Amino acid sequence: MVFKKITLIGTSPESFDAAADNAIDRAEATLENVHWIEVDELGVEIASADDREYQAEVTVAFRLEE
Amino acid sequence: MVFKKITLIGTSPESFDAAADNAIDRAEATLENVHWIEVDELGVEIASADDREYQAEVTVAFRLEE
Amino acid sequence: MVFKKITLIGTSPESFDAAADNAIDRAEATLENVHWIEVDELGVEIASADDREYQAEVTVAFRLEE
Amino acid sequence: MVFKKITLIGTSPESFDAAADNAIDRAEATLENVHWIEVDELGVEIASADDREYQAEVTVAFRLEE
Amino acid sequence: MVFKKITLIGTSPESFDAAADNAIDRAEATLENVHWIEVDELGVEIASADDREYQAEVTVAFRLEE
Amino acid sequence: MVFKKITLIGTSPESFDAAADNAIDRAEATLENVHWIEVDELGVEIASADDREYQAEVTVAFRLEE
Amino acid sequence: MVFKKITLIGTSPESFDAAADNAIDRAEATLENVHWIEVDELGVEIASADDREYQAEVTVAFRLEE
Amino acid sequence: MVFKKITLIGTSPESFDAAADNAIDRAEATLENVHWIEVDELGVEIASADDREYQAEVTVAFRLEE
Amino acid sequence: MVFKKITLIGTSPESFDAAADNAIDRAEATLENVHWIEVDELGVEIASADDREYQAEVTVAFRLEE
Amino acid sequence: MVFKKITLIGTSPESFDAAADNAIDRAEATLENVHWIEVDELGVEIASADDREYQAEVTVAFRLEE
Amino acid sequence: MVFKKITLIGTSPESFDAAADNAIDRAEATLENVHWIEVDELGVEIASADDREYQAEVTVAFRLEE
Amino acid sequence: MVFKKITLIGTSPESFDAAADNAIDRAEATLENVHWIEVDELGVEIASADDREYQAEVTVAFRLEE
Repeated sequence: MVFKKITLIGTSPESFDAAADNAIDRAEATLENVHWIEVDELGVEIASADDREYQAEVTVAFRLEE
Repeated sequence: MVFKKITLIGTSPESFDAAADNAIDRAEATLENVHWIEVDELGVEIASADDREYQAEVTVAFRLEE
Repeated sequence: MVFKKITLIGTSPESFDAAADNAIDRAEATLENVHWIEVDELGVEIASADDREYQAEVTVAFRLEE
Repeated sequence: MVFKKITLIGTSPESFDAAADNAIDRAEATLENVHWIEVDELGVEIASADDREYQAEVTVAFRLEE
Repeated sequence: MVFKKITLIGTSPESFDAAADNAIDRAEATLENVHWIEVDELGVEIASADDREYQAEVTVAFRLEE
Repeated sequence: MVFKKITLIGTSPESFDAAADNAIDRAEATLENVHWIEVDELGVEIASADDREYQAEVTVAFRLEE
Repeated sequence: MVFKKITLIGTSPESFDAAADNAIDRAEATLENVHWIEVDELGVEIASADDREYQAEVTVAFRLEE
Repeated sequence: MVFKKITLIGTSPESFDAAADNAIDRAEATLENVHWIEVDELGVEIASADDREYQAEVTVAFRLEE
Repeated sequence: MVFKKITLIGTSPESFDAAADNAIDRAEATLENVHWIEVDELGVEIASADDREYQAEVTVAFRLEE
Repeated sequence: MVFKKITLIGTSPESFDAAADNAIDRAEATLENVHWIEVDELGVEIASADDREYQAEVTVAFRLEE
Repeated sequence: MVFKKITLIGTSPESFDAAADNAIDRAEATLENVHWIEVDELGVEIASADDREYQAEVTVAFRLEE
Repeated sequence: MVFKKITLIGTSPESFDAAADNAIDRAEATLENVHWIEVDELGVEIASADDREYQAEVTVAFRLEE
């Protein structure tokens, strides 16, 4: 059994939780067998966003097919 | 005055805030004189949970009885 | 173009999101051209607060006037 | 010449060495030109394993085709 | 569900794997519901040992009774 | 032979050395077989102290009974 | 909006700047919507190179198609 | 003698060296007695720049007037 | 309630404790409402000092006026 | 009593344990009074090795002659 | 002008300051042109010492002869 | 095969690249079999230099004679 890890940054105009969920939604839409995620960093983009864009960088671990 | 620190991981099907509160509730139920907590890591368990289980690893600092 | 970074700690009796927003509100009230913020640490003060005081230490990056 | 790095977690019921080899075997089966690997973390999964499952998280560096 | 983490250092005259197993054995002998361990540091004590004493510092995560 | 590590914060109105000694005194009063300590962090509490309260966070390593 | 991050190592016989540019060139040749890169590590390979091979390990962030 | 440290991010369309110099120029234009700087991070902004904008985050140490 | 953090380096020909106190003295002479300080780094300057100049880099946290 | 620390990288075609032992053997062959070693990093060289070359970077602490 | 850095651990039955001074004394007795030192770690050895042996691990930077 | 690592700081009035090359030149003038170097830190000395003195702290890895 081998796992692979990739790094995504989810975004949301609402909250850090929604930003993390946004990244997990994306991972689950394109990857089989997502096992867990780790939050690496939280931040807020202001200058290039309409208002405040919450961001959550997460590492996604998923099991590879044998 | 001496403080001790222990590490707990709270969990919640709802949010990171609820996961951290879950760990603080546990600390306050079993320890006197909790002074502050620090969040060490946030993560989400997916494979072994019904849906998404938010996790918050926290360090709890409490004052020891003299 | 030069940016400067400063470090603030926002607080809230409600949640980590509100604590971070509290710090960003302060930054935007006193600084022009805030571009982004990074969350450095999350914690909860208990001993000196009425209940639980959520805290978010953030680094604020803003563009300096030429 | 450009290298790319990916992160894998190998597992083994035997030892950390076997867990790392498991991840390298996987990398070499699917990637050309693996140059080196770095061990990021070692751990042991107990609750969801039959006995002890040794885990080695490794970063694999391989040379990209021009 | 709340987990607690403690830190142990296992030792062995044989190998790092045996030193880690030594710490896990101790944890499982005195704690219910050990879920996983993380290896924090590896080292070798020489001056105060007969020969080479391999050491593995591990963090043990176990589920607390409700 | 297995060691366990715990984290204490000693305090003193005098100096960092006295704060560290305060934590070691506490450890030796309640634990057998303390082998060494590591200093993790130094700080000074001002707002809630009469004057300056020096603090030393230390990790204490002690040998467990077989 | 979701970003993904990958890690590349660019190389150059000339300079660290050229090594970083080499990695960015590669990223832009194969990925749409590269937003920013972060420099993780700089090094120089000597033994297996003709002369000095400057290396820049960079993390590339790019926006995923919806 | 007391020093203070502040954090600036210099930018340049040319190179990392020029980005660091840009930040030092700014520091020296507005601060007396700059003693040294430390480079914290290097990066390249691409999405919001005309071409590649090299960035150098630096910490500037300067001596305070007595 | 919002806190701000700044970084100072205190110096002393005597000891690390005196160097830290030197920085705290400076902070308290120019800032209202200093709440706590954290020690970031200790060092000794030798080449440009008469004898040994002990240095303590500290982060000072103070509460901002509303 | 003063200790000095140096950094060695041992190698082995067999295992991480053998790579660490290889570095310790070298240290003990050329240094008196080796007290302990710490493992800094583990890795595997593949491209320039016949098969897999396990590597262990270790820091060696030894007591200096008075 | 090129500097070299080495790592020493000074010891003292008295205090951390004396332990650091012990390492600097040793460095100055055997090296020309010591420029500065950085404190890496502080600890206290108890099991193998008569009482408490304060330890300071320091990095010593000295200028090499041309 | 055993490697040793040492730490040098190269300097240059010109650039970070020249500072790193300065350290590598020194290493190659006095050591056989230099295999690679890693850049640990970049900085600029201003107060004690004529103008700006770029500094590159590098770790040099070289193969020891058998």
